Amino acid sequence: MEFYNFLNDYSEGAHPNILDELISTNLIQQEGYGDDDYCTQAANLVRKEIGNPDADIHFVAGGTQANMLCSSAFLKPYESIVAPKTAHIEIHEAGAIEFAGHKINTVEAHNGKILPAQIEEMVEFHYDEHMVVPKLVFISNTTELGSVYKKQELQKISEMCKKYGLYLYIDGARLGAALTSKSNDLSLSELNQFADAYSIGGTKNGALLGEAIVINNPALKERFRYNMKQKGALIAKGRIIGIQFKNLFTDGLYYKLATHANLMAAKLAEGLAEKGYKFFISPESNQIFPILPKELIAKLEKNFGFYIWTKYDENSSVVRLVCSWATDEKAVDRFLKAI
Amino acid sequence: MEFYNFLNDYSEGAHPNILDELISTNLIQQEGYGDDDYCTQAANLVRKEIGNPDADIHFVAGGTQANMLCSSAFLKPYESIVAPKTAHIEIHEAGAIEFAGHKINTVEAHNGKILPAQIEEMVEFHYDEHMVVPKLVFISNTTELGSVYKKQELQKISEMCKKYGLYLYIDGARLGAALTSKSNDLSLSELNQFADAYSIGGTKNGALLGEAIVINNPALKERFRYNMKQKGALIAKGRIIGIQFKNLFTDGLYYKLATHANLMAAKLAEGLAEKGYKFFISPESNQIFPILPKELIAKLEKNFGFYIWTKYDENSSVVRLVCSWATDEKAVDRFLKAI
Amino acid sequence: MEFYNFLNDYSEGAHPNILDELISTNLIQQEGYGDDDYCTQAANLVRKEIGNPDADIHFVAGGTQANMLCSSAFLKPYESIVAPKTAHIEIHEAGAIEFAGHKINTVEAHNGKILPAQIEEMVEFHYDEHMVVPKLVFISNTTELGSVYKKQELQKISEMCKKYGLYLYIDGARLGAALTSKSNDLSLSELNQFADAYSIGGTKNGALLGEAIVINNPALKERFRYNMKQKGALIAKGRIIGIQFKNLFTDGLYYKLATHANLMAAKLAEGLAEKGYKFFISPESNQIFPILPKELIAKLEKNFGFYIWTKYDENSSVVRLVCSWATDEKAVDRFLKAI
Amino acid sequence: MEFYNFLNDYSEGAHPNILDELISTNLIQQEGYGDDDYCTQAANLVRKEIGNPDADIHFVAGGTQANMLCSSAFLKPYESIVAPKTAHIEIHEAGAIEFAGHKINTVEAHNGKILPAQIEEMVEFHYDEHMVVPKLVFISNTTELGSVYKKQELQKISEMCKKYGLYLYIDGARLGAALTSKSNDLSLSELNQFADAYSIGGTKNGALLGEAIVINNPALKERFRYNMKQKGALIAKGRIIGIQFKNLFTDGLYYKLATHANLMAAKLAEGLAEKGYKFFISPESNQIFPILPKELIAKLEKNFGFYIWTKYDENSSVVRLVCSWATDEKAVDRFLKAI
Repeated sequence: MEFYNFLNDYSEGAHPNILDELISTNLIQQEGYGDDDYCTQAANLVRKEIGNPDADIHFVAGGTQANMLCSSAFLKPYESIVAPKTAHIEIHEAGAIEFAGHKINTVEAHNGKILPAQIEEMVEFHYDEHMVVPKLVFISNTTELGSVYKKQELQKISEMCKKYGLYLYIDGARLGAALTSKSNDLSLSELNQFADAYSIGGTKNGALLGEAIVINNPALKERFRYNMKQKGALIAKGRIIGIQFKNLFTDGLYYKLATHANLMAAKLAEGLAEKGYKFFISPESNQIFPILPKELIAKLEKNFGFYIWTKYDENSSVVRLVCSWATDEKAVDRFLKAI
Repeated sequence: MEFYNFLNDYSEGAHPNILDELISTNLIQQEGYGDDDYCTQAANLVRKEIGNPDADIHFVAGGTQANMLCSSAFLKPYESIVAPKTAHIEIHEAGAIEFAGHKINTVEAHNGKILPAQIEEMVEFHYDEHMVVPKLVFISNTTELGSVYKKQELQKISEMCKKYGLYLYIDGARLGAALTSKSNDLSLSELNQFADAYSIGGTKNGALLGEAIVINNPALKERFRYNMKQKGALIAKGRIIGIQFKNLFTDGLYYKLATHANLMAAKLAEGLAEKGYKFFISPESNQIFPILPKELIAKLEKNFGFYIWTKYDENSSVVRLVCSWATDEKAVDRFLKAI
Repeated sequence: MEFYNFLNDYSEGAHPNILDELISTNLIQQEGYGDDDYCTQAANLVRKEIGNPDADIHFVAGGTQANMLCSSAFLKPYESIVAPKTAHIEIHEAGAIEFAGHKINTVEAHNGKILPAQIEEMVEFHYDEHMVVPKLVFISNTTELGSVYKKQELQKISEMCKKYGLYLYIDGARLGAALTSKSNDLSLSELNQFADAYSIGGTKNGALLGEAIVINNPALKERFRYNMKQKGALIAKGRIIGIQFKNLFTDGLYYKLATHANLMAAKLAEGLAEKGYKFFISPESNQIFPILPKELIAKLEKNFGFYIWTKYDENSSVVRLVCSWATDEKAVDRFLKAI
Repeated sequence: MEFYNFLNDYSEGAHPNILDELISTNLIQQEGYGDDDYCTQAANLVRKEIGNPDADIHFVAGGTQANMLCSSAFLKPYESIVAPKTAHIEIHEAGAIEFAGHKINTVEAHNGKILPAQIEEMVEFHYDEHMVVPKLVFISNTTELGSVYKKQELQKISEMCKKYGLYLYIDGARLGAALTSKSNDLSLSELNQFADAYSIGGTKNGALLGEAIVINNPALKERFRYNMKQKGALIAKGRIIGIQFKNLFTDGLYYKLATHANLMAAKLAEGLAEKGYKFFISPESNQIFPILPKELIAKLEKNFGFYIWTKYDENSSVVRLVCSWATDEKAVDRFLKAI
């Protein structure tokens, strides 16, 4: 049996539409550094989809870069970020935010999410010049645990941010998976109204690379490209990221690819549930976290790749299974047969 | 007549070999973050070409990123970089090195180059704890002006660096153009012996994106990937940069592409010289800097794209013409007809 | 009745010995930037007291500066600090450590202290290049809550640090109060053996200003003065800090002053305990945290200054009372009469 | 003959008025961190002297700290400082500005000064997002060479800054010497009108330590104390710097002390001129730069301390002689006898 990876959603390359246009446009001369036709077209498609013709759209190569760059661009030296303890910026970006000079104030995560009251408490805790000033709330959708923010949750977080003058920034590395989750009840244009700025992830949803940064708040737009250049985020052949997003936002491809990833994960989840396995967190998107006995894990590892997330008890562990736009349904079937 | 750009060497996409392999490998599952087969193969090919099996090879998306990242990784907070005034890091990286916390001590450029004596003078000027400690010499080959370091020049710079315990770092964004220049008298493996670390540029020599960072000095290797992650330089589908370099360093493609760019630029230069035009700096690689009368510039601008580099005198300006791996010889012929 | 402050231990100026020498030496010409006779003498006195003739001793103006400076000097960009949640650097330094580029990984505090097992857990949690590398354990003695590390506690923390190659740094802003606490069982020379580097606070123990930074670990000594200068910590008339420490470390003044502060706080604590009041944390040094009913607090506030630390329950709050080298015993008596 | 230093203006302690008040107020309990009565009084005295009741006044320990702090507080990440090549921040602050993340764009110095046209040229040179944005002009008065800005020079620099939206910041480490120079034609309140922010140096004019930072531009005032704390510049017993400036700005002491220093330097200069010695730069303040033959230098060095600034020719060098508020006229006479 061929080995198959459910390790992550960036094990494969890009959707064929993207590769096709890379090839068909390859020799057309274009401006560098994101001033090409494809970036322009992609930005317009994104603006239309999010429903804000005035949004600034920038394309960068990766998610850590987007987060570090936005922190540096949006915050004054003494301003901090409020984020759940499980946040990517807190754990999995090797201190990129601190390299850019900013503190992250963490709060306990609830299913990977932050609660409005935690924002208020954090703001009130900081009251004088011996302390940082919390200024930006950082959340991810989907969260690091694959959970999905409901419209009302986002709205209340947004309201709390406005109440205290904080920016709301959403890391959308897996925004496609969020918006096409069965749990989801909001559209991209609704989400757009809640956030001062956010990213729309391409890499984990069928692009070769690339995240789109959307900036709605006019106060955050000023000379953003200077910040990009300074952080090494302006790439010479920007056209290649433009082509990714032009295709992802043509004919709903972005949603189609995420829907497939979610469906495959849901099929895995249902099969596991049928066999009686429990989950560390209720499956909502393309990442699922079943609790499996150690012997089963050992057996599965021979044919399937996945991360052991954390120990659950003496006999079992939480594992992470991830599906992507390219996940082969036959591999899912094989996995379900093997459990 | 169709408009044609001699603006830069990143106006077109990638060499077809690269695109072909992107497509043929697209659905093969690979590890993320540069731990894929193509990065491994590419690194081995680079190690072989440079003649150092022990070199650490890392792939990043862009040149500013490479320079900022290496500065941060290699230097202590109070250590500075010595560079010519014309250096990319000094003028054209929006303060990336300073964002990473380091000072650049500039010296007058000689045809875009630094002289060994300037390094010595800079080191001796700094003598106590009120001053930075020059620790890394930064040069580019080709230089910002398209000139090429001779073997003996590099050797003397390298010796001066060793004398004072400085690292020598070469920005090789256009290293292909340097190594295939008619003026060149060194091989990549010889250059490799002079530098503690350097980059090999892909973006400006036929790749979609990517610079290879070569680290020879063991003291500079430690936990470099941590620095990469922190600066947003580890990209999830690292495979795509691996594929660029695997192809560039297969069957000498890297040299072939650069040779073409140089040849096209040489043809432009010869044609201009035949018509009696002078040059701001002697043409050596794929960037040339003729001095043209204003009326001719105005006429040419209707059909050709290029930068006006600087004013020369009341009646003429220096312009920059750049050829790339993809430059169409017919366009070169048309340009020469138009002058 | 005259108003009296138990707000902190920096409400008054300096011990008269210090002022006397400031005056008697005022017109003697001295080298600048810490190369004066008094800094030399003070450093020698400190070296003798700590029992390490090879220690590097530097004098800086304040505690936040010392902590920020040491973090920047000791750590590589991707290395982090492990500290209890209550740490001064985490809450009360306005993001100084992050400004210097480093992450703080916090652990739950136990009476303001860190436990060895928490260090181990934090180190093991961080295992790849997507995460920071914990490299320095930061503790304070006394802690932010006035508690005091026992010899065995420090020893085990030190052993754990050595096991994993971490530096142990002790913020000694109130080290005098720790070493003269009734709970204390170690000498300065014993503490010195456990720490790679630490500060000895002058400001909160009878100096006008100043913290001595002690560096034992040779790997951390290199060009520290360059780091000092870069962070604005080399002051021109360094003599004034030298004079503080020369006097504090002559005839045991450092201990005498701290002993007085502790005694006054103990007297307050005993008086409060006699009246039946409980404490938020057992009183050990010059800061005590009694739990007082709201009406009593309101009454006391008319004549005494102190911070309300935190709400305890509906009817009572935790207050912080701090005594200093200069605390007037009559004021203590008046306070006790008022409760 | 007793050895005497003309090395610098921080070889001695503080004016007796300052020491007297340190002693007389020593046991008066005061708020910490600059919220004490003396800082308040000092700030009011400064506001009155500069003629701006709305100015924000902050007191910090040293000049490098002031410059680094203001750069960080006033500038966005991609904004740079324009300064003469001889600037203290460029050469003698060990990269403090770059540590805070900002580039310094240097221009050739004219007698240590910057010319308005150089600002314009620097601004126009930077035109797109690949380059930093010059945003703050940094000058010193007196300059590093002891020269003094004329009213008209400052006015034109100020106008040029306004024309391009740049801030004008004046490093006033030796502002007293400038304002009491015979060359000077402006008052502190006039200078105040030209600068968005500046420092008034205490350390080099009779204080134990301390620089006052004056912020006139409302846009630069926001949460400055947060920046101070973050950079380690808020000191606990802020009272001691308050007392320095309260006394310096009472009964014109600031001017009296600087006048003395200038007079002593002028006496040295006149004596040297009478003997036929030339100067590297025309003597205007308390630092003078005579050109002396090597044999004379060797002879003088036995009894007097001074820096050899730079080699002048085979037989002579430029030396720097500095007088202070405390310079003994007898030592001046002795020096003049010795030449």
